[in-house]
Amino acid sequence: MKDAHNRARPRPIEPIFKSVSSGTAGSVPGTPIYIGDRTPVEATLSLIQYNAEQVSFITPESLEEILAMQEEGMVNWVNVNGLADQDLVKRLCGYFRLEALTVEDILNTEHRPKAEDFGTYFLLITKMITRKPDCTVEYEQVSIVITPFGVLTFQEVPGDCFGPVRERLRTGVGRLRRLGPSYLAYALLDVITDNYFSVLESLGDQLETREEIAAARSSGNRFMVELQGIKADLNRMRRTVWPVREAVGALLHSQSDILEDGLDPFLRDLYENTVQVLDSLEVYREAAASIQEVYLSSVSNRMNEVMKVLTIISTIFIPLTFIVGVYGMNFQYMPELEQPWAYPATWGVMLAIALGMVAYFKKKKWF
Amino acid sequence: MKDAHNRARPRPIEPIFKSVSSGTAGSVPGTPIYIGDRTPVEATLSLIQYNAEQVSFITPESLEEILAMQEEGMVNWVNVNGLADQDLVKRLCGYFRLEALTVEDILNTEHRPKAEDFGTYFLLITKMITRKPDCTVEYEQVSIVITPFGVLTFQEVPGDCFGPVRERLRTGVGRLRRLGPSYLAYALLDVITDNYFSVLESLGDQLETREEIAAARSSGNRFMVELQGIKADLNRMRRTVWPVREAVGALLHSQSDILEDGLDPFLRDLYENTVQVLDSLEVYREAAASIQEVYLSSVSNRMNEVMKVLTIISTIFIPLTFIVGVYGMNFQYMPELEQPWAYPATWGVMLAIALGMVAYFKKKKWF
Amino acid sequence: MKDAHNRARPRPIEPIFKSVSSGTAGSVPGTPIYIGDRTPVEATLSLIQYNAEQVSFITPESLEEILAMQEEGMVNWVNVNGLADQDLVKRLCGYFRLEALTVEDILNTEHRPKAEDFGTYFLLITKMITRKPDCTVEYEQVSIVITPFGVLTFQEVPGDCFGPVRERLRTGVGRLRRLGPSYLAYALLDVITDNYFSVLESLGDQLETREEIAAARSSGNRFMVELQGIKADLNRMRRTVWPVREAVGALLHSQSDILEDGLDPFLRDLYENTVQVLDSLEVYREAAASIQEVYLSSVSNRMNEVMKVLTIISTIFIPLTFIVGVYGMNFQYMPELEQPWAYPATWGVMLAIALGMVAYFKKKKWF
Amino acid sequence: MKDAHNRARPRPIEPIFKSVSSGTAGSVPGTPIYIGDRTPVEATLSLIQYNAEQVSFITPESLEEILAMQEEGMVNWVNVNGLADQDLVKRLCGYFRLEALTVEDILNTEHRPKAEDFGTYFLLITKMITRKPDCTVEYEQVSIVITPFGVLTFQEVPGDCFGPVRERLRTGVGRLRRLGPSYLAYALLDVITDNYFSVLESLGDQLETREEIAAARSSGNRFMVELQGIKADLNRMRRTVWPVREAVGALLHSQSDILEDGLDPFLRDLYENTVQVLDSLEVYREAAASIQEVYLSSVSNRMNEVMKVLTIISTIFIPLTFIVGVYGMNFQYMPELEQPWAYPATWGVMLAIALGMVAYFKKKKWF
Amino acid sequence: MKDAHNRARPRPIEPIFKSVSSGTAGSVPGTPIYIGDRTPVEATLSLIQYNAEQVSFITPESLEEILAMQEEGMVNWVNVNGLADQDLVKRLCGYFRLEALTVEDILNTEHRPKAEDFGTYFLLITKMITRKPDCTVEYEQVSIVITPFGVLTFQEVPGDCFGPVRERLRTGVGRLRRLGPSYLAYALLDVITDNYFSVLESLGDQLETREEIAAARSSGNRFMVELQGIKADLNRMRRTVWPVREAVGALLHSQSDILEDGLDPFLRDLYENTVQVLDSLEVYREAAASIQEVYLSSVSNRMNEVMKVLTIISTIFIPLTFIVGVYGMNFQYMPELEQPWAYPATWGVMLAIALGMVAYFKKKKWF
Repeated sequence: MKDAHNRARPRPIEPIFKSVSSGTAGSVPGTPIYIGDRTPVEATLSLIQYNAEQVSFITPESLEEILAMQEEGMVNWVNVNGLADQDLVKRLCGYFRLEALTVEDILNTEHRPKAEDFGTYFLLITKMITRKPDCTVEYEQVSIVITPFGVLTFQEVPGDCFGPVRERLRTGVGRLRRLGPSYLAYALLDVITDNYFSVLESLGDQLETREEIAAARSSGNRFMVELQGIKADLNRMRRTVWPVREAVGALLHSQSDILEDGLDPFLRDLYENTVQVLDSLEVYREAAASIQEVYLSSVSNRMNEVMKVLTIISTIFIPLTFIVGVYGMNFQYMPELEQPWAYPATWGVMLAIALGMVAYFKKKKWF
Repeated sequence: MKDAHNRARPRPIEPIFKSVSSGTAGSVPGTPIYIGDRTPVEATLSLIQYNAEQVSFITPESLEEILAMQEEGMVNWVNVNGLADQDLVKRLCGYFRLEALTVEDILNTEHRPKAEDFGTYFLLITKMITRKPDCTVEYEQVSIVITPFGVLTFQEVPGDCFGPVRERLRTGVGRLRRLGPSYLAYALLDVITDNYFSVLESLGDQLETREEIAAARSSGNRFMVELQGIKADLNRMRRTVWPVREAVGALLHSQSDILEDGLDPFLRDLYENTVQVLDSLEVYREAAASIQEVYLSSVSNRMNEVMKVLTIISTIFIPLTFIVGVYGMNFQYMPELEQPWAYPATWGVMLAIALGMVAYFKKKKWF
Repeated sequence: MKDAHNRARPRPIEPIFKSVSSGTAGSVPGTPIYIGDRTPVEATLSLIQYNAEQVSFITPESLEEILAMQEEGMVNWVNVNGLADQDLVKRLCGYFRLEALTVEDILNTEHRPKAEDFGTYFLLITKMITRKPDCTVEYEQVSIVITPFGVLTFQEVPGDCFGPVRERLRTGVGRLRRLGPSYLAYALLDVITDNYFSVLESLGDQLETREEIAAARSSGNRFMVELQGIKADLNRMRRTVWPVREAVGALLHSQSDILEDGLDPFLRDLYENTVQVLDSLEVYREAAASIQEVYLSSVSNRMNEVMKVLTIISTIFIPLTFIVGVYGMNFQYMPELEQPWAYPATWGVMLAIALGMVAYFKKKKWF
Repeated sequence: MKDAHNRARPRPIEPIFKSVSSGTAGSVPGTPIYIGDRTPVEATLSLIQYNAEQVSFITPESLEEILAMQEEGMVNWVNVNGLADQDLVKRLCGYFRLEALTVEDILNTEHRPKAEDFGTYFLLITKMITRKPDCTVEYEQVSIVITPFGVLTFQEVPGDCFGPVRERLRTGVGRLRRLGPSYLAYALLDVITDNYFSVLESLGDQLETREEIAAARSSGNRFMVELQGIKADLNRMRRTVWPVREAVGALLHSQSDILEDGLDPFLRDLYENTVQVLDSLEVYREAAASIQEVYLSSVSNRMNEVMKVLTIISTIFIPLTFIVGVYGMNFQYMPELEQPWAYPATWGVMLAIALGMVAYFKKKKWF
Repeated sequence: MKDAHNRARPRPIEPIFKSVSSGTAGSVPGTPIYIGDRTPVEATLSLIQYNAEQVSFITPESLEEILAMQEEGMVNWVNVNGLADQDLVKRLCGYFRLEALTVEDILNTEHRPKAEDFGTYFLLITKMITRKPDCTVEYEQVSIVITPFGVLTFQEVPGDCFGPVRERLRTGVGRLRRLGPSYLAYALLDVITDNYFSVLESLGDQLETREEIAAARSSGNRFMVELQGIKADLNRMRRTVWPVREAVGALLHSQSDILEDGLDPFLRDLYENTVQVLDSLEVYREAAASIQEVYLSSVSNRMNEVMKVLTIISTIFIPLTFIVGVYGMNFQYMPELEQPWAYPATWGVMLAIALGMVAYFKKKKWF
């Protein structure tokens, strides 16, 4: 019940565009401005250099340190955590000769996922979706720039799901160390997509709880608010994953030289995964709609039952109350009142009426 | 009523991704891991070798026995029942030089149906849908690998619907023994698709029962839960058969050398069958929606009827009760009370009111 | 009201697949098996031979008689009524060298309408839709095989709508006698499509009756069941005519030599007719949805009215009953009871309350 | 309120196919038969001949007169009003060498709008939509045949909206007199499309009235019937204009020599107009759906209010009536009855209960 | 609550076509007529001339002044505010050799957004969407003509959102001054699109308020009217932005020489922005649908609660009232009346009944 409680607070409509509109309307196009709505955090840098033989993990003090460390014949993975230090991002992008619009896209953390071939590099914008302990779902933009020399990744906030990739780089298991930057980019995308499944699992669990509640007919007042919240989560995720699928498809069909040969089967696999995520989202949306129908039907059935109880009690007792009212009248000439058998006879009549009513309701299958 | 009872338990949202996410997030892509949610069973192997002249059914003790038995000029059908013994599957796939991603797809029992041409072999992933005696529908993944030398089939659990194909191989009736591996694969697919029809029949029967209940207006409380369960079954089947149709279409339009000439009309027939399954699923979905509307309308009508009974009884007796109340008052100066005709006159007035009310309701067509 | 009565019986979900699944699952593909669900009737044969100069109508005793009568320079129309005699059908098809899958398609009376070019002949599967006197709609499969020498037609049951074509052949009016087999096939399709319109008319009439009932607000209990029945009829017809349209389109765009030059405008006309049937089915579906909304709104309004009557009567008399109850109490010290003006004053107060209530309801526009 | 009243009669489902089916099923294809459902009127002919220099308006007595008047270097516009005189139509079409199927299309006044290139002429079938003074919408088929020598127009009934075109021909303003037959056809189509807008306006007005009624919560019984009538009008118009759009698009993309060079921008403009009509129809359909939702919500709110009044009155007075009933009992030993303070105390208790109830309802925000 | 109040007035259906139909039906096509429904305002002209080195802002007295000022090597931006002075617009368009249909499109302020290549110039019709202080949304047509020498902009009414562009021209920051007319057109479109986001924000705020109201279950009577108003705003905006997206797409894929090389990335960015606006509109539409469902469910729950209160009170007191009625009867032989324990015993029985009822309701979870 804990997550149900958390969900129950009415959630504001996602204020996607607030910062966009107030921050950039009228600004020079191509001027990079950070527009995320998170508290800016100090950007942290990390560099991983590797080839088949060796790997080194470096936490540089400054950008210059990174630039100095570039080496021929190594794959360089520069990861930027936190986009608040715009100057740093711009200088880094400048070093790798990224275009101004690319920098703007990287800094606009509300950008639609996409894949774009810029000739000398490939820009991938995707979303990392993680579930928080309190069952809310968090979206973080991850921009991946694939160059012939390495990969740049830009994350909105610290904390990521790239741990397994780092571990595989460290241990040197599998193809990762042997292949080039585009395979690294694939591995990162793969890990991000794998995370979608655990978010799906979390949403599925929430739906399951709702389903039990709806079927148990003990639906509280906040039921619909919560269910609509889950539906909104599903919709948002669908709207996010849909362009991710398109971006992976664009990558798959790209003829760019930057992508290694032999990457195709892996990209196809990745593509199938995103398709499966979308399939499951459809399943969950159908399930949510079904739960809602069960719930509404249960509300209606409940009302029906309440009405029946009221009607049965009323229709049995109202006529009886009329009868007793009749013999409570004070007319001087009411011959029945003086008969000794009148009182028990009245009881008999009333009993007969009550039983008749009960029989009628039984016949109508109201019990 | 037995199946209705079985269906009535609220069913959890299908936990499609639970095992996926917990088992493989972050694992090396291309690493085959069995992720089915069934209790692993010992894998059983079987081999059928045949050509137009002869056929032999072998239940080998080990993989090596199978490999040793391969023979030129014979079609080999290796069937693996149960995927829990991953090592066995991997060794088998290795012998036939299947790629790592293919093995991963075979072991991922939640994979979307698909057909993929790998040049030297053709991978088909489809689903066997069977109905259990308790009217639940079971989905089992069947992977079919078509190579120039024979067919490999991988089934999730023992027990299949390939009996008729084995029988036709044994008796040698029809084209099956004369043609090559791709015709065998077609025959297996055909038998799987034929089974869809019997599942459809079962779902149709369940719908028919619901329809009668909805029309008979004796709908119990669990009606909607059960109906939504059938709808979920229909949706799940549709989502499964849709990519199967795509896969068969891809097979039909494939230019692969592995597929024999002359297979086209059979594949087209198979394709038409899957289209017809999808058509019927649409019919059943419409029927389910229609049953729901009839049910909801019947609930509403029922409520209406309850309200009418309450209203008729109340509106007839409430005024009468008022009148008898009037003459139950204890005022000292109530001239009516002393008239001998007052009591019968009151009865007359009350009768008139009651009859007037009844006439009013008759006019309003409430009876 | 007669047809309404006929429709009211709850109709089972169409058991499309019952016979399919039980009869053919696991059978050798390409093995023709009759799977219709009608009582098999003796197949009857008829042959019409014609060219521009002459025409002869023959009712042959046996298949051999037909085969012997084939003549150069004549168009032969062989019509088979009733598919129960599979052997006859197979021998006939064998004579015209039809493929086994074609024969299977002809015998499978639940086949989806389609047009398929087999090189030496053209197979058309379509549905004859007729309305029975009791307003039910009957579907009968008609397979038309166009060969360079003539046309074969296979009908599920005796009784067809080809009378006008036969009459035109007899009288020799129009192009029919001058042109070849493909024009004959067109003429048959045209007559079948024309029949769709009269079925549409029948369904439209039924809808009209329902519309009047819904608007008259005297909707009985079975209204929704009947309306859903009509909707199911419309849906089934749409699902049948949709592939017919596709088949005619395939015929129209076919490059087959079997089709005469100059047939195009006629096929286009036929195609437009099927489009118009589908258009009208959409109109009727919208009309049915609209009728349902009117009905549901009328049920809701009716409930509202019932509630209002109950509320008006209750809220007027309940307070009055309370007042008369007060003066029915037996307290010894109730000063009002002894005043001679008290009784009429009580009446006055009660009248005032009643009038006040009525005024309130008038203001609320409840009357 | 006048139009609302007119609309309120339940309207029969459009009997589109009645005349089609009864009139032509089984007739020889390509046999022109007039199938309109209007009372046949005498066909009237008119001829307008013009070039840049001169224009003459002729009302010929007979077809022959028209034929005799044809002149080189002039654009001839022959307008036929009323299709009942089939012989006349057929002779006219014969003179211009129109094909039999074209004549059939012209006479079938239920034909779907279309544009078809017959090589030597262009057939356009469209619908004139006009609103009658009583707010009903009338559909009239207009067939336009563009030949190199002039334009033939066939109208179902007398009375058209071509007045402005005739006026422009008379005055010689603009391009009309200088350009050829296809520009005249464009001008006629343009005027027909312009009329769609005024019908839209009329439907918009009707919707507006409904919207006010729905929002004012004084919805009468016929509200839904009327609203569904407007929705049916919108649907019918959409179904009519949709193929008109397609026909104009076909005209726009046609390569026919019959169409003058330089017509393209005008046809594009016409096309944009039909798109805008369809856009507006979508707007109105959404508006109608919205009005329906407001109405249903208002019905539901109203019911809620009625229930509240009933509940408040009942729950206040039912306990009080019970109390006064208690002291109306005739037990011999009821000590309260003899206390002088008992009567006022009872009133006090009852007042307290009533006020408590009122406070409870206030807290629940029922007032 | 202020904006809620403003929204509550029932708004008329948008009278899009009123002026169109009454003003232009039957007019000569290509005749420019101003058809906006705003009070005509004096047209004001402004001219901005710039190149990389210099910029001059001119407010000319007359059209001739503008024409005289045209200069080689400068980009000229002529802005016309207010379209009422048709003669001025026509003369200006004539000077730049725009076609008559272009002028008609510019003056038709209800034109669908579009992009059209006229060879020597490019016509863009788009809509400026602004939110007024009273939360209404205003649509203003902006026509942009891109010629090799400069840009013409036509606005329906004075007051625009081009301030930031003018400022950037003045200060000379960024690419704007260095690049040609098509970049200026892009900058104007960009600013217009940026404004969409702030309108979205406003609509999002309104939705948020509604969501809180729906969840708080204190929904007033006008709730649905207001919600439908917001939905209508969302629909209208979607219908406006959809063709804007198409127009930008047409611009992006245009091969016209008028568009500078290197504009592509900027246009792609603009295109992505319009896609994102449409995405958000879908989000808001879903949110509005969700709010409506919560509201309707809350109305239904409320009704349920009201019914429960009524039923509980009625079913407790109706039987009790019957009992006290029994002992209010005046039969002479009612033995209970004379027993001293009868009165307290009756109270006991009544208490037992009341407690039993309460226990029953507790068990049914009605409290």
